[in-house]
Amino acid sequence: MNVGIIGLGLMGGSFAKALKRYSIAEKVYGYARSEKSKEEIIELNLVDEIVDIKTLKDNCDLIVLAIPVDNIISMLPEFLDISSNTTIMDLGSTKEFIVNNVPSKIRKNFIAAHPMTGTEKSGPKAAIDDLYEGRTVVLCNLEDNENIHVNRAFKVFQEIGMRIVVMDANEHDIHACYMSHLPHAISYSLANTVMGHEDPKSIIALAAGGFKDMSRIAKSSPEMWTDIFKQNRKNLLKSIDLFEEHMKKVRQMVEEEDYSDLKQWMKKANTLHEIL
Amino acid sequence: MNVGIIGLGLMGGSFAKALKRYSIAEKVYGYARSEKSKEEIIELNLVDEIVDIKTLKDNCDLIVLAIPVDNIISMLPEFLDISSNTTIMDLGSTKEFIVNNVPSKIRKNFIAAHPMTGTEKSGPKAAIDDLYEGRTVVLCNLEDNENIHVNRAFKVFQEIGMRIVVMDANEHDIHACYMSHLPHAISYSLANTVMGHEDPKSIIALAAGGFKDMSRIAKSSPEMWTDIFKQNRKNLLKSIDLFEEHMKKVRQMVEEEDYSDLKQWMKKANTLHEIL
Repeated sequence: MNVGIIGLGLMGGSFAKALKRYSIAEKVYGYARSEKSKEEIIELNLVDEIVDIKTLKDNCDLIVLAIPVDNIISMLPEFLDISSNTTIMDLGSTKEFIVNNVPSKIRKNFIAAHPMTGTEKSGPKAAIDDLYEGRTVVLCNLEDNENIHVNRAFKVFQEIGMRIVVMDANEHDIHACYMSHLPHAISYSLANTVMGHEDPKSIIALAAGGFKDMSRIAKSSPEMWTDIFKQNRKNLLKSIDLFEEHMKKVRQMVEEEDYSDLKQWMKKANTLHEIL
Repeated sequence: MNVGIIGLGLMGGSFAKALKRYSIAEKVYGYARSEKSKEEIIELNLVDEIVDIKTLKDNCDLIVLAIPVDNIISMLPEFLDISSNTTIMDLGSTKEFIVNNVPSKIRKNFIAAHPMTGTEKSGPKAAIDDLYEGRTVVLCNLEDNENIHVNRAFKVFQEIGMRIVVMDANEHDIHACYMSHLPHAISYSLANTVMGHEDPKSIIALAAGGFKDMSRIAKSSPEMWTDIFKQNRKNLLKSIDLFEEHMKKVRQMVEEEDYSDLKQWMKKANTLHEIL
Protein backbone atom coordinates (compact mmCIF):
# COMPACT_ATOMS: atom_id res chain seq x y z
CA MET A 1 0.00 0.00 0.00
CA ASN A 2 1.18 3.51 -0.84
CA VAL A 3 0.11 6.34 1.45
CA GLY A 4 0.06 10.07 0.71
CA ILE A 5 -0.07 12.56 3.55
CA ILE A 6 -1.17 16.13 2.98
CA GLY A 7 0.20 18.34 5.73
CA LEU A 8 3.11 16.97 7.73
CA GLY A 9 2.80 18.75 11.05
CA LEU A 10 2.12 17.20 14.43
CA MET A 11 -0.66 14.88 13.20
CA GLY A 12 0.53 14.14 9.64
CA GLY A 13 4.22 13.96 10.49
CA SER A 14 3.57 11.62 13.42
CA PHE A 15 1.32 9.52 11.15
CA ALA A 16 4.19 9.20 8.65
CA LYS A 17 6.50 8.14 11.48
CA ALA A 18 4.00 5.51 12.67
CA LEU A 19 3.62 4.10 9.13
CA LYS A 20 7.39 3.70 8.87
CA ARG A 21 7.76 2.29 12.36
CA TYR A 22 5.32 -0.52 11.66
CA SER A 23 6.33 -0.99 8.00
CA ILE A 24 2.73 -0.43 6.91
CA ALA A 25 3.29 1.43 3.65
CA GLU A 26 5.52 0.52 0.75
CA LYS A 27 5.97 4.17 0.05
CA VAL A 28 4.92 7.29 1.97
CA TYR A 29 4.41 10.38 -0.18
CA GLY A 30 4.05 13.83 1.30
CA TYR A 31 2.56 17.11 0.17
CA ALA A 32 3.19 20.47 1.83
CA ARG A 33 2.47 23.98 0.67
CA SER A 34 5.20 26.13 2.19
CA GLU A 35 8.86 25.92 1.27
CA LYS A 36 9.81 26.09 4.95
CA SER A 37 7.67 23.03 5.71
CA LYS A 38 9.14 21.15 2.74
CA GLU A 39 12.67 21.83 3.96
CA GLU A 40 11.81 20.65 7.47
CA ILE A 41 10.08 17.50 6.17
CA ILE A 42 13.17 16.60 4.12
CA GLU A 43 15.52 17.41 6.99
CA LEU A 44 13.48 15.23 9.38
CA ASN A 45 13.16 12.50 6.75
CA LEU A 46 9.43 12.21 7.43
CA VAL A 47 8.41 10.82 3.99
CA ASP A 48 9.98 8.96 1.07
CA GLU A 49 9.18 11.70 -1.39
CA ILE A 50 7.55 15.12 -1.50
CA VAL A 51 5.25 15.26 -4.53
CA ASP A 52 2.47 17.34 -6.07
CA ILE A 53 -1.21 16.55 -5.62
CA LYS A 54 -1.49 14.85 -9.02
CA THR A 55 1.33 12.36 -8.28
CA LEU A 56 -0.22 11.71 -4.90
CA LYS A 57 -3.63 10.96 -6.45
CA ASP A 58 -2.11 8.71 -9.11
CA ASN A 59 0.07 6.65 -6.80
CA CYS A 60 -1.63 6.33 -3.43
CA ASP A 61 -4.17 3.85 -2.06
CA LEU A 62 -4.73 6.04 0.97
CA ILE A 63 -4.58 9.84 1.09
CA VAL A 64 -4.57 11.41 4.54
CA LEU A 65 -5.59 15.04 5.03
CA ALA A 66 -3.75 16.23 8.12
CA ILE A 67 -4.53 19.94 7.76
CA PRO A 68 -6.72 22.46 9.66
CA VAL A 69 -10.44 21.62 9.50
CA ASP A 70 -11.41 24.57 7.28
CA ASN A 71 -8.74 23.63 4.74
CA ILE A 72 -10.05 20.07 4.53
CA ILE A 73 -13.36 21.30 3.09
CA SER A 74 -11.74 23.73 0.68
CA MET A 75 -9.32 21.09 -0.58
CA LEU A 76 -11.78 18.26 -1.23
CA PRO A 77 -12.79 19.39 -4.77
CA GLU A 78 -9.21 18.55 -5.83
CA PHE A 79 -10.02 14.87 -5.29
CA LEU A 80 -13.22 14.56 -7.34
CA ASP A 81 -11.40 12.53 -10.01
CA ILE A 82 -9.74 9.94 -7.75
CA SER A 83 -10.16 6.23 -8.35
CA SER A 84 -13.03 4.55 -6.49
CA ASN A 85 -10.36 2.36 -4.90
CA THR A 86 -8.52 5.30 -3.32
CA THR A 87 -9.35 6.07 0.29
CA ILE A 88 -9.32 9.68 1.49
CA MET A 89 -9.22 10.26 5.20
CA ASP A 90 -9.14 13.36 7.35
CA LEU A 91 -7.79 13.62 10.91
CA GLY A 92 -9.67 16.79 11.92
CA SER A 93 -11.01 17.56 15.42
CA THR A 94 -14.55 18.29 14.19
CA LYS A 95 -16.58 15.86 12.15
CA GLU A 96 -20.17 16.94 11.47
CA PHE A 97 -19.42 19.98 9.32
CA ILE A 98 -16.85 17.96 7.39
CA VAL A 99 -19.04 14.93 6.61
CA ASN A 100 -21.87 17.25 5.61
CA ASN A 101 -19.62 19.01 3.12
CA VAL A 102 -17.85 16.12 1.42
CA PRO A 103 -18.76 16.21 -2.32
CA SER A 104 -21.20 13.35 -2.94
CA LYS A 105 -19.03 11.93 -5.72
CA ILE A 106 -16.31 10.98 -3.23
CA ARG A 107 -18.45 10.49 -0.12
CA LYS A 108 -17.99 6.69 -0.29
CA ASN A 109 -14.19 7.11 -0.35
CA PHE A 110 -14.03 9.61 2.47
CA ILE A 111 -13.30 8.28 5.97
CA ALA A 112 -13.94 10.85 8.72
CA ALA A 113 -11.42 10.12 11.47
CA HIS A 114 -10.39 11.91 14.65
CA PRO A 115 -7.46 10.49 16.58
CA MET A 116 -7.95 11.67 20.18
CA THR A 117 -4.34 12.60 20.74
CA GLY A 118 -2.09 15.60 20.30
CA THR A 119 0.28 18.03 21.92
CA GLU A 120 0.30 21.83 21.99
CA LYS A 121 2.99 21.90 19.30
CA SER A 122 2.57 22.22 15.54
CA GLY A 123 4.62 21.96 12.35
CA PRO A 124 6.88 19.14 11.06
CA LYS A 125 9.23 19.43 14.05
CA ALA A 126 6.31 18.63 16.36
CA ALA A 127 6.00 15.12 14.85
CA ILE A 128 6.73 12.39 17.40
CA ASP A 129 7.17 8.63 17.16
CA ASP A 130 4.43 7.43 19.46
CA LEU A 131 1.64 10.02 19.14
CA TYR A 132 -0.95 7.39 18.17
CA GLU A 133 0.30 4.46 20.26
CA GLY A 134 -2.43 3.13 22.53
CA ARG A 135 -4.73 6.12 21.90
CA THR A 136 -8.32 6.18 20.63
CA VAL A 137 -9.40 7.11 17.11
CA VAL A 138 -13.04 7.96 16.44
CA LEU A 139 -14.43 6.99 13.01
CA CYS A 140 -17.71 8.65 12.04
CA ASN A 141 -20.69 7.80 9.83
CA LEU A 142 -19.07 4.70 8.35
CA GLU A 143 -22.46 3.69 6.91
CA ASP A 144 -21.75 6.22 4.16
CA ASN A 145 -18.51 4.48 3.16
CA GLU A 146 -17.77 1.52 0.94
CA ASN A 147 -16.31 -1.50 2.71
CA ILE A 148 -12.94 -1.36 0.99
CA HIS A 149 -12.31 2.05 2.56
CA VAL A 150 -13.65 1.13 5.98
CA ASN A 151 -11.49 -2.00 6.04
CA ARG A 152 -8.41 -0.06 4.98
CA ALA A 153 -8.93 2.53 7.71
CA PHE A 154 -9.47 -0.16 10.37
CA LYS A 155 -6.35 -2.01 9.24
CA VAL A 156 -4.10 1.06 9.30
CA PHE A 157 -5.30 2.36 12.68
CA GLN A 158 -5.07 -1.07 14.25
CA GLU A 159 -1.59 -1.57 12.88
CA ILE A 160 -0.32 1.70 14.35
CA GLY A 161 -1.64 0.60 17.74
CA MET A 162 -4.88 2.58 18.04
CA ARG A 163 -8.15 1.70 19.68
CA ILE A 164 -11.06 2.29 17.29
CA VAL A 165 -14.39 3.77 18.40
CA VAL A 166 -17.21 4.23 15.90
CA MET A 167 -19.88 6.89 16.33
CA ASP A 168 -22.13 9.39 14.65
CA ALA A 169 -20.42 12.66 13.63
CA ASN A 170 -22.89 14.71 15.63
CA GLU A 171 -22.28 12.61 18.75
CA HIS A 172 -18.50 12.88 18.16
CA ASP A 173 -18.62 16.66 18.05
CA ILE A 174 -20.41 16.83 21.39
CA HIS A 175 -17.91 14.50 23.10
CA ALA A 176 -14.91 16.23 21.46
CA CYS A 177 -16.27 19.55 22.66
CA TYR A 178 -16.32 18.56 26.34
CA MET A 179 -13.15 16.48 26.26
CA SER A 180 -11.04 18.80 24.15
CA HIS A 181 -12.53 22.03 22.74
CA LEU A 182 -13.92 23.40 26.04
CA PRO A 183 -10.61 22.62 27.85
CA HIS A 184 -8.80 24.62 25.16
CA ALA A 185 -11.11 27.63 25.59
CA ILE A 186 -10.50 27.47 29.36
CA SER A 187 -6.74 27.09 29.04
CA TYR A 188 -6.51 30.11 26.69
CA SER A 189 -8.59 32.10 29.21
CA LEU A 190 -6.42 31.08 32.15
CA ALA A 191 -3.20 31.92 30.29
CA ASN A 192 -4.55 35.33 29.32
CA THR A 193 -5.79 35.99 32.87
CA VAL A 194 -2.45 35.12 34.47
CA MET A 195 -0.38 37.00 31.89
CA GLY A 196 -2.64 40.02 32.28
CA HIS A 197 -2.07 40.03 36.04
CA GLU A 198 1.34 38.55 36.81
CA ASP A 199 4.76 39.70 35.62
CA PRO A 200 6.88 37.21 33.62
CA LYS A 201 9.46 36.96 36.43
CA SER A 202 6.86 35.75 38.93
CA ILE A 203 5.36 33.34 36.40
CA ILE A 204 8.75 31.75 35.78
CA ALA A 205 9.67 31.61 39.48
CA LEU A 206 6.35 30.40 40.84
CA ALA A 207 4.78 28.19 38.16
CA ALA A 208 4.37 24.67 39.50
CA GLY A 209 2.81 21.56 37.98
CA GLY A 210 -0.78 22.76 38.35
CA PHE A 211 -0.45 25.95 36.36
CA LYS A 212 1.94 24.39 33.86
CA ASP A 213 -0.51 21.59 33.10
CA MET A 214 -3.52 23.90 32.99
CA SER A 215 -1.87 26.37 30.61
CA ARG A 216 0.00 23.95 28.33
CA ILE A 217 -2.69 23.72 25.63
CA ALA A 218 -2.97 27.55 25.59
CA LYS A 219 0.20 27.32 23.50
CA SER A 220 -1.74 25.53 20.72
CA SER A 221 -2.01 26.96 17.20
CA PRO A 222 -4.54 29.85 16.95
CA GLU A 223 -5.12 29.13 13.25
CA MET A 224 -6.07 25.53 13.92
CA TRP A 225 -8.16 26.26 17.00
CA THR A 226 -10.08 29.21 15.53
CA ASP A 227 -11.27 26.83 12.80
CA ILE A 228 -12.22 24.16 15.33
CA PHE A 229 -14.16 26.66 17.50
CA LYS A 230 -15.90 27.86 14.31
CA GLN A 231 -16.90 24.39 13.18
CA ASN A 232 -18.08 23.26 16.61
CA ARG A 233 -19.55 26.63 17.58
CA LYS A 234 -22.95 25.54 18.91
CA ASN A 235 -21.63 22.75 21.11
CA LEU A 236 -18.84 24.97 22.38
CA LEU A 237 -21.24 27.75 23.40
CA LYS A 238 -23.40 25.26 25.27
CA SER A 239 -20.42 23.69 27.03
CA ILE A 240 -19.09 27.12 28.06
CA ASP A 241 -22.50 27.85 29.60
CA LEU A 242 -22.41 24.64 31.63
CA PHE A 243 -18.84 25.33 32.74
CA GLU A 244 -19.80 28.89 33.67
CA GLU A 245 -22.54 27.56 35.96
CA HIS A 246 -19.81 25.76 37.92
CA MET A 247 -17.54 28.84 37.98
CA LYS A 248 -20.47 30.89 39.32
CA LYS A 249 -21.17 28.20 41.88
CA VAL A 250 -17.63 28.05 43.22
CA ARG A 251 -17.46 31.86 43.30
CA GLN A 252 -20.71 32.02 45.23
CA MET A 253 -19.73 29.32 47.73
CA VAL A 254 -16.42 31.11 48.43
CA GLU A 255 -18.10 34.52 48.65
CA GLU A 256 -20.83 33.27 50.98
CA GLU A 257 -18.29 31.19 52.93
CA ASP A 258 -20.33 28.10 52.34
CA TYR A 259 -17.37 25.79 52.96
CA SER A 260 -19.34 22.64 53.65
CA ASP A 261 -20.97 22.76 50.20
CA LEU A 262 -17.62 23.75 48.67
CA LYS A 263 -16.03 20.61 50.09
CA GLN A 264 -18.87 18.44 48.77
CA TRP A 265 -18.52 20.03 45.32
CA MET A 266 -14.77 19.33 45.34
CA LYS A 267 -15.46 15.76 46.47
CA LYS A 268 -17.74 15.33 43.47
CA ALA A 269 -14.93 16.48 41.18
CA ASN A 270 -12.62 14.03 42.97
CA THR A 271 -14.72 11.11 41.70
CA LEU A 272 -13.07 11.65 38.32
CA HIS A 273 -10.23 9.74 39.97
CA GLU A 274 -12.36 6.58 39.81
CA ILE A 275 -12.62 6.90 36.03
CA LEU A 276 -9.34 8.44 34.93
CA MET B 1 20.45 18.73 63.44
CA ASN B 2 17.32 16.84 64.44
CA VAL B 3 14.15 17.52 62.48
CA GLY B 4 10.57 16.80 63.49
CA ILE B 5 7.85 16.66 60.88
CA ILE B 6 4.22 17.01 61.83
CA GLY B 7 2.05 15.46 59.13
CA LEU B 8 3.75 13.02 56.76
CA GLY B 9 1.64 13.25 53.62
CA LEU B 10 2.72 14.48 50.20
CA MET B 11 4.59 17.55 51.51
CA GLY B 12 5.86 16.25 54.86
CA GLY B 13 6.63 12.73 53.67
CA SER B 14 8.54 14.05 50.65
CA PHE B 15 10.38 16.48 52.95
CA ALA B 16 11.45 13.55 55.14
CA LYS B 17 12.66 11.70 52.04
CA ALA B 18 14.66 14.75 50.90
CA LEU B 19 16.29 15.13 54.34
CA LYS B 20 17.40 11.49 54.23
CA ARG B 21 18.54 11.67 50.63
CA TYR B 22 20.90 14.53 51.33
CA SER B 23 21.88 13.35 54.84
CA ILE B 24 20.77 16.67 56.28
CA ALA B 25 19.35 15.52 59.61
CA GLU B 26 20.91 13.31 62.22
CA LYS B 27 17.49 12.11 63.15
CA VAL B 28 14.07 12.68 61.59
CA TYR B 29 11.16 12.41 63.98
CA GLY B 30 7.57 12.21 62.81
CA TYR B 31 4.19 12.95 64.32
CA ALA B 32 0.87 11.82 62.87
CA ARG B 33 -2.58 11.76 64.36
CA SER B 34 -4.32 8.80 62.76
CA GLU B 35 -3.36 5.17 63.32
CA LYS B 36 -3.67 4.49 59.60
CA SER B 37 -1.15 7.22 58.80
CA LYS B 38 1.24 5.93 61.47
CA GLU B 39 1.12 2.44 59.99
CA GLU B 40 1.80 3.78 56.49
CA ILE B 41 4.68 5.98 57.70
CA ILE B 42 6.31 2.99 59.39
CA GLU B 43 5.69 0.75 56.39
CA LEU B 44 7.22 3.33 54.03
CA ASN B 45 10.08 3.97 56.47
CA LEU B 46 9.61 7.73 56.11
CA VAL B 47 11.08 8.73 59.50
CA ASP B 48 13.45 7.34 62.10
CA GLU B 49 10.87 7.40 64.85
CA ILE B 50 7.23 8.32 65.37
CA VAL B 51 6.93 10.29 68.60
CA ASP B 52 4.52 12.49 70.57
CA ILE B 53 4.58 16.29 70.39
CA LYS B 54 6.50 16.61 73.66
CA THR B 55 9.38 14.41 72.49
CA LEU B 56 9.43 16.32 69.21
CA LYS B 57 9.67 19.66 71.02
CA ASP B 58 12.40 18.40 73.35
CA ASN B 59 14.60 16.85 70.69
CA CYS B 60 14.30 18.85 67.47
CA ASP B 61 16.14 21.91 66.17
CA LEU B 62 13.61 22.28 63.39
CA ILE B 63 9.91 21.41 63.54
CA VAL B 64 8.05 21.36 60.22
CA LEU B 65 4.27 21.70 60.10
CA ALA B 66 3.17 19.92 56.95
CA ILE B 67 -0.55 19.93 57.66
CA PRO B 68 -3.61 21.73 56.17
CA VAL B 69 -3.47 25.51 56.61
CA ASP B 70 -6.33 25.72 59.14
CA ASN B 71 -4.67 23.09 61.34
CA ILE B 72 -1.42 25.05 61.40
CA ILE B 73 -3.10 27.92 63.23
CA SER B 74 -4.96 25.69 65.65
CA MET B 75 -1.83 23.72 66.47
CA LEU B 76 0.55 26.62 67.16
CA PRO B 77 -0.42 27.11 70.85
CA GLU B 78 1.15 23.70 71.49
CA PHE B 79 4.56 25.24 70.77
CA LEU B 80 4.46 28.27 73.09
CA ASP B 81 7.01 26.65 75.41
CA ILE B 82 9.65 25.73 72.84
CA SER B 83 13.27 26.82 73.17
CA SER B 84 14.21 30.10 71.47
CA ASN B 85 16.69 28.03 69.45
CA THR B 86 14.04 25.79 67.93
CA THR B 87 12.79 26.74 64.49
CA ILE B 88 9.15 26.10 63.57
CA MET B 89 8.27 26.19 59.91
CA ASP B 90 5.04 25.68 58.00
CA LEU B 91 4.71 24.58 54.37
CA GLY B 92 1.17 25.87 53.76
CA SER B 93 -0.14 27.32 50.48
CA THR B 94 -1.40 30.54 52.08
CA LYS B 95 0.78 32.83 54.13
CA GLU B 96 -0.88 36.08 55.21
CA PHE B 97 -3.51 34.60 57.51
CA ILE B 98 -0.88 32.33 59.02
CA VAL B 99 1.76 34.99 59.77
CA ASN B 100 -0.95 37.23 61.22
CA ASN B 101 -2.03 34.48 63.60
CA VAL B 102 1.28 33.17 64.92
CA PRO B 103 1.35 33.75 68.71
CA SER B 104 3.76 36.65 69.38
CA LYS B 105 5.79 34.57 71.82
CA ILE B 106 7.01 32.30 69.01
CA ARG B 107 6.82 34.74 66.10
CA LYS B 108 10.62 35.02 65.93
CA ASN B 109 10.93 31.23 65.66
CA PHE B 110 8.26 30.79 63.02
CA ILE B 111 9.37 30.61 59.37
CA ALA B 112 6.50 30.96 56.88
CA ALA B 113 7.42 28.85 53.87
CA HIS B 114 5.56 27.75 50.75
CA PRO B 115 7.30 25.30 48.46
CA MET B 116 5.72 25.83 45.01
CA THR B 117 5.43 22.17 44.20
CA GLY B 118 2.96 19.36 44.65
CA THR B 119 0.87 16.69 43.01
CA GLU B 120 -2.85 15.95 43.24
CA LYS B 121 -2.17 13.08 45.65
CA SER B 122 -2.21 13.13 49.44
CA GLY B 123 -1.29 10.93 52.40
CA PRO B 124 2.02 9.19 53.25
CA LYS B 125 1.89 7.05 50.11
CA ALA B 126 1.93 10.24 48.01
CA ALA B 127 5.43 11.10 49.27
CA ILE B 128 8.01 11.12 46.46
CA ASP B 129 11.80 11.38 46.38
CA ASP B 130 12.25 14.48 44.25
CA LEU B 131 9.23 16.68 45.03
CA TYR B 132 11.41 19.65 46.04
CA GLU B 133 14.31 19.15 43.62
CA GLY B 134 14.89 22.25 41.50
CA ARG B 135 11.61 23.88 42.57
CA THR B 136 10.99 27.28 44.16
CA VAL B 137 10.20 27.88 47.84
CA VAL B 138 8.77 31.23 48.92
CA LEU B 139 9.76 32.50 52.38
CA CYS B 140 7.62 35.32 53.78
CA ASN B 141 8.10 38.23 56.20
CA LEU B 142 11.57 37.12 57.28
CA GLU B 143 12.08 40.52 58.96
CA ASP B 144 9.97 39.13 61.82
CA ASN B 145 12.36 36.21 62.37
CA GLU B 146 15.60 35.89 64.30
CA ASN B 147 18.67 35.19 62.17
CA ILE B 148 19.32 31.75 63.57
CA HIS B 149 15.95 30.57 62.19
CA VAL B 150 16.29 32.34 58.85
CA ASN B 151 19.74 30.83 58.35
CA ARG B 152 18.53 27.37 59.28
CA ALA B 153 15.64 27.59 56.80
CA PHE B 154 17.93 28.83 54.00
CA LYS B 155 20.41 26.05 54.70
CA VAL B 156 17.82 23.26 54.66
CA PHE B 157 16.02 24.45 51.51
CA GLN B 158 19.28 25.00 49.67
CA GLU B 159 20.53 21.57 50.67
CA ILE B 160 17.43 19.84 49.34
CA GLY B 161 17.94 21.61 46.00
CA MET B 162 15.38 24.41 46.15
CA ARG B 163 15.51 27.92 44.77
CA ILE B 164 14.60 30.47 47.46
CA VAL B 165 12.42 33.51 46.78
CA VAL B 166 11.68 35.99 49.58
CA MET B 167 8.54 38.14 49.60
CA ASP B 168 5.84 39.70 51.68
CA ALA B 169 3.05 37.33 52.77
CA ASN B 170 0.41 39.52 51.17
CA GLU B 171 2.26 39.55 47.87
CA HIS B 172 2.78 35.78 48.11
CA ASP B 173 -0.93 35.16 48.53
CA ILE B 174 -1.74 37.13 45.38
CA HIS B 175 0.83 35.26 43.28
CA ALA B 176 -0.12 31.88 44.76
CA CYS B 177 -3.75 32.67 43.95
CA TYR B 178 -3.13 33.18 40.21
CA MET B 179 -0.50 30.47 39.83
CA SER B 180 -2.19 27.80 41.91
CA HIS B 181 -5.49 28.54 43.71
CA LEU B 182 -7.40 29.88 40.66
CA PRO B 183 -6.19 26.95 38.49
CA HIS B 184 -7.55 24.58 41.15
CA ALA B 185 -10.98 26.30 41.17
CA ILE B 186 -11.05 26.02 37.36
CA SER B 187 -9.97 22.40 37.31
CA TYR B 188 -12.64 21.40 39.85
CA SER B 189 -15.22 23.25 37.69
CA LEU B 190 -14.10 21.55 34.49
CA ALA B 191 -14.15 18.10 36.10
CA ASN B 192 -17.65 18.68 37.46
CA THR B 193 -18.85 20.05 34.10
CA VAL B 194 -17.53 17.08 32.14
CA MET B 195 -18.75 14.49 34.65
CA GLY B 196 -22.17 16.14 34.70
CA HIS B 197 -22.43 15.87 30.92
CA GLU B 198 -20.42 12.88 29.75
CA ASP B 199 -20.81 9.21 30.67
CA PRO B 200 -17.79 7.47 32.28
CA LYS B 201 -17.36 5.21 29.24
CA SER B 202 -16.87 8.18 26.89
CA ILE B 203 -14.55 9.92 29.34
CA ILE B 204 -12.30 6.84 29.51
CA ALA B 205 -12.35 6.27 25.75
CA LEU B 206 -11.91 9.86 24.63
CA ALA B 207 -9.78 11.60 27.25
CA ALA B 208 -6.55 12.80 25.69
CA GLY B 209 -3.64 14.81 27.09
CA GLY B 210 -5.50 18.12 27.17
CA PHE B 211 -8.39 17.01 29.36
CA LYS B 212 -6.18 14.79 31.50
CA ASP B 213 -3.80 17.67 32.26
CA MET B 214 -6.63 20.15 32.84
CA SER B 215 -8.51 17.88 35.24
CA ARG B 216 -5.58 16.34 37.13
CA ILE B 217 -5.59 18.81 40.03
CA ALA B 218 -9.38 18.34 40.40
CA LYS B 219 -8.38 15.12 42.18
CA SER B 220 -6.73 17.14 44.97
CA SER B 221 -7.84 16.85 48.60
CA PRO B 222 -11.12 18.76 49.30
CA GLU B 223 -10.17 19.16 52.97
CA MET B 224 -6.89 20.84 52.12
CA TRP B 225 -8.28 22.99 49.32
CA THR B 226 -11.37 24.18 51.17
CA ASP B 227 -9.01 25.59 53.82
CA ILE B 228 -6.82 27.25 51.19
CA PHE B 229 -9.81 28.82 49.43
CA LYS B 230 -11.03 30.03 52.83
CA GLN B 231 -7.71 31.60 53.79
CA ASN B 232 -7.14 33.24 50.41
CA ARG B 233 -10.81 34.10 49.86
CA LYS B 234 -10.49 37.73 48.78
CA ASN B 235 -7.73 37.17 46.25
CA LEU B 236 -9.49 34.11 44.89
CA LEU B 237 -12.76 36.00 44.32
CA LYS B 238 -10.90 38.75 42.47
CA SER B 239 -8.98 36.26 40.32
CA ILE B 240 -12.18 34.38 39.44
CA ASP B 241 -13.68 37.70 38.29
CA LEU B 242 -10.71 38.39 36.01
CA PHE B 243 -10.83 34.85 34.63
CA GLU B 244 -14.57 35.18 34.08
CA GLU B 245 -13.99 38.28 31.96
CA HIS B 246 -11.92 36.13 29.62
CA MET B 247 -14.50 33.33 29.57
CA LYS B 248 -17.20 35.88 28.71
CA LYS B 249 -14.95 37.30 26.01
CA VAL B 250 -14.25 33.96 24.33
CA ARG B 251 -17.94 33.05 24.53
CA GLN B 252 -18.90 36.35 22.94
CA MET B 253 -16.32 36.12 20.15
CA VAL B 254 -17.52 32.61 19.29
CA GLU B 255 -21.19 33.60 19.49
CA GLU B 256 -20.69 36.68 17.33
CA GLU B 257 -18.37 34.76 14.99
CA ASP B 258 -15.67 37.31 15.54
CA TYR B 259 -12.92 34.92 14.46
CA SER B 260 -10.27 37.49 13.72
CA ASP B 261 -10.36 38.79 17.31
CA LEU B 262 -10.56 35.20 18.58
CA LYS B 263 -7.34 34.37 16.77
CA GLN B 264 -5.62 37.45 18.20
CA TRP B 265 -6.78 36.52 21.70
CA MET B 266 -5.40 33.00 21.26
CA LYS B 267 -2.13 34.45 19.96
CA LYS B 268 -1.85 36.54 23.10
CA ALA B 269 -2.26 33.37 25.19
CA ASN B 270 0.42 31.74 23.01
CA THR B 271 3.00 34.24 24.25
CA LEU B 272 3.08 32.26 27.48
CA HIS B 273 5.32 29.99 25.45
CA GLU B 274 8.05 32.64 25.55
CA ILE B 275 8.04 32.58 29.34
CA LEU B 276 7.25 29.00 30.28
